[in-house]
Amino acid sequence: MRRRGSSFHLKVVEISMTVKIAVLKETRPGELRVAMVPSVIDRLMRLGAQVAIQSGAGDAVKLPDAAFKNATCVVDAAQLVRDADIVLAVQPPAAETVRAMKTGALLISFIYANKEPALVDLLRQKKITCFAMERVPRISRAQTMDALSSQATLAGYYAALLGATHLARIFPRMTTAVGSLRPATVLVMGLGVAGLQALATARRLGAIVEGYDVRPETKGEAASLGARFVDTGVNATGEGGYARELTPEEKSKVAKVLTAHIQQADVIITTASVPGRPAPKLIGKAQVDGMKAGAVIVDLAADGGGNCEYTKPGETIQIGQVTIVAPLNVPSLLGEHASELYAKNLLNLLELLIHDGKIAPDWNDEVLAKTALTGAGSAKRVGVAKPAA
Amino acid sequence: MRRRGSSFHLKVVEISMTVKIAVLKETRPGELRVAMVPSVIDRLMRLGAQVAIQSGAGDAVKLPDAAFKNATCVVDAAQLVRDADIVLAVQPPAAETVRAMKTGALLISFIYANKEPALVDLLRQKKITCFAMERVPRISRAQTMDALSSQATLAGYYAALLGATHLARIFPRMTTAVGSLRPATVLVMGLGVAGLQALATARRLGAIVEGYDVRPETKGEAASLGARFVDTGVNATGEGGYARELTPEEKSKVAKVLTAHIQQADVIITTASVPGRPAPKLIGKAQVDGMKAGAVIVDLAADGGGNCEYTKPGETIQIGQVTIVAPLNVPSLLGEHASELYAKNLLNLLELLIHDGKIAPDWNDEVLAKTALTGAGSAKRVGVAKPAA
Repeated sequence: MRRRGSSFHLKVVEISMTVKIAVLKETRPGELRVAMVPSVIDRLMRLGAQVAIQSGAGDAVKLPDAAFKNATCVVDAAQLVRDADIVLAVQPPAAETVRAMKTGALLISFIYANKEPALVDLLRQKKITCFAMERVPRISRAQTMDALSSQATLAGYYAALLGATHLARIFPRMTTAVGSLRPATVLVMGLGVAGLQALATARRLGAIVEGYDVRPETKGEAASLGARFVDTGVNATGEGGYARELTPEEKSKVAKVLTAHIQQADVIITTASVPGRPAPKLIGKAQVDGMKAGAVIVDLAADGGGNCEYTKPGETIQIGQVTIVAPLNVPSLLGEHASELYAKNLLNLLELLIHDGKIAPDWNDEVLAKTALTGAGSAKRVGVAKPAA
Repeated sequence: MRRRGSSFHLKVVEISMTVKIAVLKETRPGELRVAMVPSVIDRLMRLGAQVAIQSGAGDAVKLPDAAFKNATCVVDAAQLVRDADIVLAVQPPAAETVRAMKTGALLISFIYANKEPALVDLLRQKKITCFAMERVPRISRAQTMDALSSQATLAGYYAALLGATHLARIFPRMTTAVGSLRPATVLVMGLGVAGLQALATARRLGAIVEGYDVRPETKGEAASLGARFVDTGVNATGEGGYARELTPEEKSKVAKVLTAHIQQADVIITTASVPGRPAPKLIGKAQVDGMKAGAVIVDLAADGGGNCEYTKPGETIQIGQVTIVAPLNVPSLLGEHASELYAKNLLNLLELLIHDGKIAPDWNDEVLAKTALTGAGSAKRVGVAKPAA
């Protein structure tokens, strides 16, 4: 950690030759992650960047300011971003922080533009080029920048643990002096990155696992993890690898087949989300009412309202004999690893943006063009579709 | 479920021919288990017993009164035990319940006589033969009655889950698009039943596991679970398979060797207890102060005061950058399976007590003689040592 103020002349020379990156301390409730970790800062420096970090940014993940050895440390967010070329964050920054940014600077964070219309207007006014991490295209070349996937993997792991700690039974078959305890049956609904990791973790713990997804091509992935696939006969593969929303008729058909599995499960983990839209309801109230006494639902889609009709986002509730756990921002509960993966996702994106110590994005690059939400990039873009927002 | 009052004449005849067993609803705070489950009641009936259960006894483990189909259901504890030959419970019953028992009846539950001197006096006054489940000898023939072991197995499993949910990192090595996350190192201190199950569960979740115990013969057991054994050069094998308490010199030697392992661990699970005495302190304050930022201690010995000097029984605390989790009565958190195993332990003990529909203990049986804490059995005992209490 270096503090500003020393070696003033040397600093001026340094600054003129490097890309200045500022890392914000997160301020939203429950957000424990930080957008940068010390090991990745070294790699940013090799790109020709100089990193400043807001004091306390890593506190929640046990990274005190002193751990960021090669970064300048600044207390005030406005002061931190004032002369930054690139600002990094996990959650959308506060409006006053964006107002303090240099006109024409870059911002990289999750945004979810439809929830933040005022912020998007402000970014446009300030001519800030904003790369919204949830917009990284799901193509093979962009996998290393795909923060939605890296965070979802961790959330899936944690969901299986939450199921295991809330169930008053154990997951594995256990042979004891007085006979065997039967293993738990865990049903995972939604077999994206999070769902597959939840399946794998529940299986590791010894549970009997079942997987379900509206996209039948996930059957093989479930099988490769030792899970039985629940086939409902409805195909709902949508754009970009996400599930499309189902019609009411399809939902009814799916629900009928699923009800039997739902009502046999000890633990259900739901992970179905449609980016930027309310989460689909996969489990209706009547289905919950018919569940086994003591069963547990872990609703990983709570941030989008939840996959279960009874879900109260952010709360753990009892409905009859069933426990419904609906944590918000699950990756923050694994904040150390979540920050490490997110920082590496940012590094890979920054490697596309910074060349020879200068910010020089190639707007013909599909990854940059699609991830850009606002900013200078739009005007220079050639041969690629204009971003939606 | 049958309610009293119907078929009065038939009931009188039945009662005269059977052993009447009463199952109490637990009343101590945090105790969620129940001493009997429906599947075991059927087996008690085959022994010639008739079972009555206190209304609501199974509520906390999602066994409503109606689930106990072959048991009479009684609301009031005093009424329930008034004509019972045998009373079953998990925790020591309330004094007023013991006062309501028939003189000379049997009580089977955990007691821990040194914590309950007034209750033990009362049992003696009432000439109640009390089998204290914590006194079941640790011999091969009594394994099926060893409730300390059955409950400790579950606690060990749960401790690993608590470690995993409190750590802000994942347990397994995980390969992602941006590289591998390193696996967690889990150190288990105390390799009894609970410790070995904690090791096995942490290993299942993909952690690197290390085991430590003052009894060097546990080394092979740790190795068979894929764990590295921490050898301190101190042998503290004590009576009855428990570890004896160490001398100050031994403690110091052990602490020195252990400090290096403690300070490299991401999660430490401690499970060292000496029955009826305060838990030994395995981790000192200075050792915690030198632990890794973000590390987690799960202190399974919290019921006995804890194995860590900082432990606050029943609380989760932060000491610097370390989280110390010290839950009380962990088997209750797996109450459904814990009750199932406990009920089976009781069944196996009852099979030694009930012959041809009558209570007829053989006081030459080491298991009965050693488990008996108070009562008629003492006078009839031949050829075995008098119980300590």
